[in-house]
Amino acid sequence: MTDTTTRGAAATVADLTLEEKASLTSGASFWYTKPIERLGIPSIMVTDGPHGLRKQRGGGDHLGLGDSVPATCFPPAVGIGSSWDVDLVARVGEALGIETSIENVAVLLGPGINIKRSPLCGRNFEYFSEDPIVSGVLGAAIVRGIQSKGVGTSLKHFAANNQENDRMRSSSDVDPRPLREIYLRGFERVVEDAQPWTVMCSYNRINGVYASEDPWLLTKVLRDEWGFEGLVVSDWGAVNERVPGLAAGMDLEMPSSMGITDAQIVAAVQGGSLEESVVDVAAGRVLELVRKASEGAGRIDGPLDVDAHHALAREAAGRSMVLLKNEAPATGSGTVLPLQRYRSVALIGAFVDQPRFQGAGSSMINPTRVDDVALEIVAHANEDYVFQSQGFSIAVDPDPAEVERLRADAVALAADQEVAVLFLGLPARLESEGYDREDIDLPADQLELLDAVLEVNPNVVVVLSNGGVVALPFADRVPAIVEGWLLGQAGGGAIADVLYGVVNPSGKLTETIPLRLEDTPAYLDFPGEFSHVRYGEGLFVGYRWYDARHMDVAFPFGHGLSYTTFAYGPATAQVGADGDVEVRVPVSNTGDRAGREVVQVYTSLPGGAVQRPERELKAFASVALEAGESRDVVLTVRRKDLAYWDIRTDSWVVEGGDYDFDVAASSRDIRSSVSVTVEGDPVALTLSRTSSIGEVMAHPVVGPIVQAAIAQMMGGMEGATSIMPEGVDMTKMMESFPIGRAGMFAAGEGGITTEMIDGLIAMANAPQ
Amino acid sequence: MTDTTTRGAAATVADLTLEEKASLTSGASFWYTKPIERLGIPSIMVTDGPHGLRKQRGGGDHLGLGDSVPATCFPPAVGIGSSWDVDLVARVGEALGIETSIENVAVLLGPGINIKRSPLCGRNFEYFSEDPIVSGVLGAAIVRGIQSKGVGTSLKHFAANNQENDRMRSSSDVDPRPLREIYLRGFERVVEDAQPWTVMCSYNRINGVYASEDPWLLTKVLRDEWGFEGLVVSDWGAVNERVPGLAAGMDLEMPSSMGITDAQIVAAVQGGSLEESVVDVAAGRVLELVRKASEGAGRIDGPLDVDAHHALAREAAGRSMVLLKNEAPATGSGTVLPLQRYRSVALIGAFVDQPRFQGAGSSMINPTRVDDVALEIVAHANEDYVFQSQGFSIAVDPDPAEVERLRADAVALAADQEVAVLFLGLPARLESEGYDREDIDLPADQLELLDAVLEVNPNVVVVLSNGGVVALPFADRVPAIVEGWLLGQAGGGAIADVLYGVVNPSGKLTETIPLRLEDTPAYLDFPGEFSHVRYGEGLFVGYRWYDARHMDVAFPFGHGLSYTTFAYGPATAQVGADGDVEVRVPVSNTGDRAGREVVQVYTSLPGGAVQRPERELKAFASVALEAGESRDVVLTVRRKDLAYWDIRTDSWVVEGGDYDFDVAASSRDIRSSVSVTVEGDPVALTLSRTSSIGEVMAHPVVGPIVQAAIAQMMGGMEGATSIMPEGVDMTKMMESFPIGRAGMFAAGEGGITTEMIDGLIAMANAPQ
Repeated sequence: MTDTTTRGAAATVADLTLEEKASLTSGASFWYTKPIERLGIPSIMVTDGPHGLRKQRGGGDHLGLGDSVPATCFPPAVGIGSSWDVDLVARVGEALGIETSIENVAVLLGPGINIKRSPLCGRNFEYFSEDPIVSGVLGAAIVRGIQSKGVGTSLKHFAANNQENDRMRSSSDVDPRPLREIYLRGFERVVEDAQPWTVMCSYNRINGVYASEDPWLLTKVLRDEWGFEGLVVSDWGAVNERVPGLAAGMDLEMPSSMGITDAQIVAAVQGGSLEESVVDVAAGRVLELVRKASEGAGRIDGPLDVDAHHALAREAAGRSMVLLKNEAPATGSGTVLPLQRYRSVALIGAFVDQPRFQGAGSSMINPTRVDDVALEIVAHANEDYVFQSQGFSIAVDPDPAEVERLRADAVALAADQEVAVLFLGLPARLESEGYDREDIDLPADQLELLDAVLEVNPNVVVVLSNGGVVALPFADRVPAIVEGWLLGQAGGGAIADVLYGVVNPSGKLTETIPLRLEDTPAYLDFPGEFSHVRYGEGLFVGYRWYDARHMDVAFPFGHGLSYTTFAYGPATAQVGADGDVEVRVPVSNTGDRAGREVVQVYTSLPGGAVQRPERELKAFASVALEAGESRDVVLTVRRKDLAYWDIRTDSWVVEGGDYDFDVAASSRDIRSSVSVTVEGDPVALTLSRTSSIGEVMAHPVVGPIVQAAIAQMMGGMEGATSIMPEGVDMTKMMESFPIGRAGMFAAGEGGITTEMIDGLIAMANAPQ
Repeated sequence: MTDTTTRGAAATVADLTLEEKASLTSGASFWYTKPIERLGIPSIMVTDGPHGLRKQRGGGDHLGLGDSVPATCFPPAVGIGSSWDVDLVARVGEALGIETSIENVAVLLGPGINIKRSPLCGRNFEYFSEDPIVSGVLGAAIVRGIQSKGVGTSLKHFAANNQENDRMRSSSDVDPRPLREIYLRGFERVVEDAQPWTVMCSYNRINGVYASEDPWLLTKVLRDEWGFEGLVVSDWGAVNERVPGLAAGMDLEMPSSMGITDAQIVAAVQGGSLEESVVDVAAGRVLELVRKASEGAGRIDGPLDVDAHHALAREAAGRSMVLLKNEAPATGSGTVLPLQRYRSVALIGAFVDQPRFQGAGSSMINPTRVDDVALEIVAHANEDYVFQSQGFSIAVDPDPAEVERLRADAVALAADQEVAVLFLGLPARLESEGYDREDIDLPADQLELLDAVLEVNPNVVVVLSNGGVVALPFADRVPAIVEGWLLGQAGGGAIADVLYGVVNPSGKLTETIPLRLEDTPAYLDFPGEFSHVRYGEGLFVGYRWYDARHMDVAFPFGHGLSYTTFAYGPATAQVGADGDVEVRVPVSNTGDRAGREVVQVYTSLPGGAVQRPERELKAFASVALEAGESRDVVLTVRRKDLAYWDIRTDSWVVEGGDYDFDVAASSRDIRSSVSVTVEGDPVALTLSRTSSIGEVMAHPVVGPIVQAAIAQMMGGMEGATSIMPEGVDMTKMMESFPIGRAGMFAAGEGGITTEMIDGLIAMANAPQ
């Protein structure tokens, strides 16, 4: 398919001069590609996302110092991702596509699907999960939704860009297995399932090579292996050296280079160090993007239906909240939530009046409106029962006397009401694109306020606003906690809906909430130093780490409560003709109100030969069930998602064996397990002198010969005194011995010669 | 000095033919170098250590199937290392040197000083510590001791050989800082302080390159940086490709290659792919070794004073035990230990009659005698009060009925005595050279026996025999635990001495005892797979890990109790003219019997710019104090041990600042701290387009210019609306921006051009 695309654009490329082709490979300004007026090739606009359109008025300056046109602010990925709902995410994508098209923008720069390697990454709110299947499946859904409206997306930040610290230079030093199985797997999923129009290469280096000039990443993996058909655009300013970047597959440099790098490309071709065909390919891809954009952008007429999109934003926000805990109030039975009307409630916290609903940096948009949570609560409850107190200040340097007064007022208010709802969270300055956090703590004054309130009224609900995970040292002492993340412009209404049970919460955690920062996998090597960060935890990112080390967490990956309850029946599974595994499990809503359950499937291979996490998510589904309703939920685990990256053969390999398929309500709440026998992929190892005797023994051709010889040798050693302990099976030691050095213990007269070994290797490697 | 040595040997090298020179670079047989009879160059013998001489009768076969001559079995490194006593270790080294010389052996193959990266390494008993200072200082002491008797040592296994699994092929993938600061630091110390006659290269690869053919390791680091003057010998069978190995600096291949690799060397020289001078250097080093050996080996006449060496072995064993815990018995006051005469004691455990006193594999020697612990205890106590029961079986497949009977008998015996001493430990087959452990558990039947005994008699002393750390799930329930490690042939007497207070225990842990295997730093990447093992924990090996992650441990690094108590006064410190820091601390024996205290000095640099462990050992001393005696203990922290490995400049750098020097009784028992101001090393960075603005701003020449320009630019941005949150200091973000891309935000008319940036860089890098 790549050929067709290239050929289609090439027809026009042939009409261009070298200078014109080179000019297409960098921007005209901050947000526009270059036109070629001679041939009527237009300039197209691309602009920031991902959870809303940031179209700057008057061309803009990237840092957003210029205003942008109002757009609907949907929940950022940290919120919407918690829905685990492909359909909802796709519907939000469609709405984003409509807004993009109305504004005549060709490409919305998103989604961001990087893995949340550490909770400290300042940009985590823009990403979906610590898990690549969640990131990939939801990323593909939003790409499909946006692109269904005739505009493009930019899948970012490709790749292994998991921190903000030193992001323009830092090398993510990561081994092949975690790189493939954790950090690239989501990108692979989105490319293969949804073909984003563009992929945005990241600022950082990967194993020492800038993403913007890595032919392995941008061509071998992205195009040759995954079949990417679109264009690669640089993150803004990610170009290091333009000419090798172009050759590596980095088609479009953004923003403008003021013509400098265009001239470098022309000079390289003229000097013979760059093939002109490389320029043709990149320019052709730009032309193809322009062609698609010309067909799609602006196709949808405005004005934007602000109300309809706000309503969708509210629905999405309601689905983004995670009910972490909901226990009985100190006075009374049942659970604290949902709140009841005609019971007095104190709304406490600066976030009531100053909601934090999106993150800072390039994704920050100008919302069409912003809900007021207090008004929304009054709308659900009776206004005579709703009281408010600021409680704390999120100002940069609050006056100490003022802090004292705010707290005292809030505590007094809380003491007099039946329930206190505390709106706690991270002030905007504590997390942002551009820098990382230094801890995962809520501000101390907020925790102190909470303690003070708890002393006068234990019936506390904590509602959190935060883009990155925060520690919850109060989790044991507070009966109800709602993790509200960042909810977009309609978060206020959605919070009211959830608190009063108008919406039954159904979000689940796409990232583990740890007990302490020190427990997190990357604690000791995040963000690295001297422009290198070692991904020392390897495969064991997020829940994979806590599970493998058998550590307690505050709330596990996949966890989230509802106002109703769900029961799971016994799971069954069947391997299809294509090798994919269909898992079927009956799920019942056993409570008294409608709700949604996120059903999760994890796999493991007990006794497998290859190292694996204890359990890995492979499929999930969000299922709506009326009270009392039961349904068979069907989930498909793709065979390719069972594969590990084999470093011996540089390829994906499915290990054969009896896999456990765990159907679960969270990563630590397995409800039903079924064993599935999966046939393995054949692995053909080429033998050499450094092959181990074990590898040689396992070889289909020469293995039997060697096995017989070894049995004879071992027999001759029986009964001899030994420095090895009694009861030790020497086989395993011997099996790891390189065949090329086998002569060491069996050389000499009648022994093993180099010629014999080389002959054996040649026999093994001969074409069958 | 290398020049002199090489010239000295070269005089003879000039007399040799190419074939003769090549022949010298591999062994004649398993333990002998090749003679050249034409010139009267003798063959010399090298043979296994390290904790005793394993000289096989009749030439041997490496696997030890042939008998070896009796030799004194001193405590292996895991034991003697726990003494932390340089003088004691040197005295044992002298005794080893005497035995080596008497047997006319030229080189004793040891010490092994590899870092205990994981408790699972099967060969940990041959190594000293998880800390490079302990390993290096004690390694140097034993080398000095042995070589003082005119025979040589072989410092092994060089390098990063920290597991047995797949040891012939596995690549230890380790980053520069941990490689230098943890894995090589001890080797560097021994080479610089003690100049071992030989260094033995290890089997494994390091970052993909076989140690036996790594010019960086064997020449650049070992010789050029550290000034090694001796010969590099291969571990037995460690040669992969001989010709590149020789060029890399691997002088002597062992054992014999049956002439095969000698011929390869000759062919390479004749074919022009290898300089003959390379062969000259290696052959010259062999000749120099032969010359030194001819002067030393056999210089000491036998017979061996078996009794004197056994007595030293007993002294060393007494100093090797670590009293982990010693609390009051359930009935009575004071502490359980030392035991009192005329109190009945039950000696329980198979290890009473079948002591485990050394490890399996190449280091296993034929002891001159072996103490019987029961007899030794009877000698201290009154025989009427000493009873014995086997309790459990360490046979490979014990009969279940027999197991039951043994346990019942032991429990019955324990119930009737005042104290039960349980000798628990690892059967020999659970740990050995050649393979790694799979867990750190004592056998389940031993733990069950312990539980059964505790039910009838809480006055239990556990004495452990194990080469690698074991988990101690019973630590809270047993009043006294003696970690006996492997104690050599006189362990029985030494255990009796410690139990009855004839010797006051003074050993301390050179490795952390963790609570669970899952807590250990390398748990998730040991031993790796597909011949690669990622050292993902980086610098955070051993206590560095538990401290940094604020984890509980069973017993911390450096811990060990005594029958007396010690008080520390306030420490003082002074920086000497050479930059080394002299720390002085008064230590008092505040108890009623003589004892020894191991005083430890740890350093840290609060607020340092470079990542460091919370605290790192830098110096230690074992101090003998009579009851009531006080003494000023003086310890020297070398300036070079404060240095970190700087990956920007590929060199050691001492960061300047106020270091905390913590004087401690263990890594978690700090007794006195003193702050020391240390002047930093200058670091001269060459600037380039990828230098960060922060680096440029810090540059002595161009920094002020850039600082002024930026201040002006930032001033112009004030008051503008921003997508960055209020209260954020943009400075840090800006400082990490590469200077070469600074044009991105300040290009255009009157802005920054590439020429300006390149000019700035040229100005900075110009010779001052």
